[in-house]
Amino acid sequence: MKGLKGALVFAQSGGPTSVINASAAGVFLEGLKSEQITAVYGAAHGIRGILNEEMYDISKEDENELLLLKNTPSSAMGSVRYKLKDAAVDDTDYKRLLEVFKKYDVRYFFYNGGNDSMDTCNKISKYMAKSGYDINVIGVPKTIDNDLYGTDHCPGFASAAKYIATTIMEINLDAKVYDTPMVCIIEAMGRNAGWLTASAALANAKGLGADLIYLPEVPFSVDKFVKDIQDVCAKNNNKCIAVVSEGIHDENGTLICEKLGEVGAKDSFGHAQLGGVAASLAALIKAKTGFKTRGIELSLMQRCGAHCASGTDIEETFEAGKQAVRAAVAGETDKMVCYARKEGDKYECEYKLLPLELAANTEKTVPLEWITNNGTGISEEFVKYALPLIQGEPNMTKVDGLPRFAKLKKVLVEKR
Amino acid sequence: MKGLKGALVFAQSGGPTSVINASAAGVFLEGLKSEQITAVYGAAHGIRGILNEEMYDISKEDENELLLLKNTPSSAMGSVRYKLKDAAVDDTDYKRLLEVFKKYDVRYFFYNGGNDSMDTCNKISKYMAKSGYDINVIGVPKTIDNDLYGTDHCPGFASAAKYIATTIMEINLDAKVYDTPMVCIIEAMGRNAGWLTASAALANAKGLGADLIYLPEVPFSVDKFVKDIQDVCAKNNNKCIAVVSEGIHDENGTLICEKLGEVGAKDSFGHAQLGGVAASLAALIKAKTGFKTRGIELSLMQRCGAHCASGTDIEETFEAGKQAVRAAVAGETDKMVCYARKEGDKYECEYKLLPLELAANTEKTVPLEWITNNGTGISEEFVKYALPLIQGEPNMTKVDGLPRFAKLKKVLVEKR
Repeated sequence: MKGLKGALVFAQSGGPTSVINASAAGVFLEGLKSEQITAVYGAAHGIRGILNEEMYDISKEDENELLLLKNTPSSAMGSVRYKLKDAAVDDTDYKRLLEVFKKYDVRYFFYNGGNDSMDTCNKISKYMAKSGYDINVIGVPKTIDNDLYGTDHCPGFASAAKYIATTIMEINLDAKVYDTPMVCIIEAMGRNAGWLTASAALANAKGLGADLIYLPEVPFSVDKFVKDIQDVCAKNNNKCIAVVSEGIHDENGTLICEKLGEVGAKDSFGHAQLGGVAASLAALIKAKTGFKTRGIELSLMQRCGAHCASGTDIEETFEAGKQAVRAAVAGETDKMVCYARKEGDKYECEYKLLPLELAANTEKTVPLEWITNNGTGISEEFVKYALPLIQGEPNMTKVDGLPRFAKLKKVLVEKR
Repeated sequence: MKGLKGALVFAQSGGPTSVINASAAGVFLEGLKSEQITAVYGAAHGIRGILNEEMYDISKEDENELLLLKNTPSSAMGSVRYKLKDAAVDDTDYKRLLEVFKKYDVRYFFYNGGNDSMDTCNKISKYMAKSGYDINVIGVPKTIDNDLYGTDHCPGFASAAKYIATTIMEINLDAKVYDTPMVCIIEAMGRNAGWLTASAALANAKGLGADLIYLPEVPFSVDKFVKDIQDVCAKNNNKCIAVVSEGIHDENGTLICEKLGEVGAKDSFGHAQLGGVAASLAALIKAKTGFKTRGIELSLMQRCGAHCASGTDIEETFEAGKQAVRAAVAGETDKMVCYARKEGDKYECEYKLLPLELAANTEKTVPLEWITNNGTGISEEFVKYALPLIQGEPNMTKVDGLPRFAKLKKVLVEKR
């Protein structure tokens, strides 16, 4: 709806990224400038902060600290994993949200997250519309997984990809330093979509990548994996680097980490599975070949490594936040901001809007035609797609040689 | 011996660091400039390259690539773990080294490594002197472990410390993003010396560090660890970040990773212990508390993360290589280059020489008086010591948003 005047609430949801707060900075700074926006609030821990009336007054923050958010990893407002029930089944939460929105005169609502969060955002948008409460609702995408439908890529993906590619290049040099056998298995995040694992191919393009890359888009065979490794070792002075997605599974859909775990991996308290799938596979290869192996989990670092973020990703993510506010103020609602790639040789990003229900529940995986070499390689198309996204370095403020992350005051809005 | 004229051989040994090749660059560039040095060789895979007459002719390399070595992690010449026997017991290798040195008229020998490598360097130096063969032998220190005797700090330590502190700051933000319990256990390298683990205190100084820090200098009690974590969680909204050294052990010297492994951790092939000690401790805490836990091993990344190296470390390590050549050309032999810190408030590094036998077999651990809070904290003295060392950013060439590491031609010297 056009011409709305009222408060803005921004909330973050789901797993963080190293650049997620760039969108927060974009929303906050744009919101504070707008004459139609009477107050700017950040909800503590996503939707729960609204339900509990725990919201920070962003006008109390220093502008410099808000700008530092661009380089500060991990949801600065706090995050949440909270699934709203279907309003037709149980509308308790929706009624409460409406009550809080009315009480604080919230007319602009921005939800920042991935698939599940866009589902939440969509449900809220639809309920408010049905209730006749005037509010403009915009989803701001975020996910290292890069699996949101309708957008060329997702804010946060490129920085994780850059971290992964850089780290694989460095590990490649380290793992090959001795003249003795060495099999190194690296695990990247991604349960159903292999975008992050595929970004190993960016290191390959520089000649310092992985010999084998396994995505969850293709069923994984443990026996074939062992043979693949042995084949590479035979050709390659007994050295091999493999990258696997945490979500690799067999043809029945059983996760390999569970499968190897079930066979016997127990900790000293009888709990299955100590490390992740890389550790299990490294132990397996060691048993099969006798070679020295290393299982390396990129763990939280790949999604919080702001020091190795993509400058392009930071600026696009910042812009996505600003675009969300501009769209809402101009009267748009029930949409998600998304990225489109302009035609032509030179990479350029355009910002568009997509109906929320389209963004909500479709998962975008890596095209199967980009997966090559009998499920162990990634094609040049992926590199062409991803390389422009990882350009540029983060313009990070450092103090004493360490990052200076944003320090927010987080002044709670007085409950009404 | 003064006025020696002949070839130079430089070799790298032991585990690499993210800045180890800065010393190689220093030795090579200084060696190529010297009129007393007739040829500059890099031995492939340490001492073994000399024994096998596998040496690269560094004069064939482009100067620009040699300069890129400053930012290229992991021993560019290849490394080795090779222990020379005592010459009194078996002098086969020594005779062979002497033979090769004579054949190629090698009059300058530089060995780049840690404790064991300085022992090797010392043995070679003593044997050559005893044999009456004129050669100047200089050790160039290198170790992320920071445990070499007689030097204020070791080339490579500060970059690993900077990587660890930066990463802990980022993990700190990520691990606390949800309003739910979370115990995160991070494992740093260091078998006997806890310098790397202690560098978590640099993150603490920025308010984004670890609640608990465990060094191998202090015996580790699993029961006390569980209680420490529970105490922090009780005070801290059920959140805790602990950093442990891979080398933590009980009062009998048994490694905790072995201890927890022995009790039951087996992979699907019956081999003990999948991950490291962080994974085992995370599983244990999960079993004891029911909280979500994460075990994170910083693995190879902490020693090859050149993208997050310390500018100060790079320049000092480069200078250490140049100083080694200058000292040798001036007639010094049987010494290791070491760092001394100038008196005064402003940090400044001086380069000195230490007899090799002193450097060879003494391990420098973290002073016990720097370990505080009943074995869970690190004092301000450590931060004062380490903070100047991590200053400055790497001046890294990037292509397509990724590091451009040195590409050497590695032209082998023709065998004689």
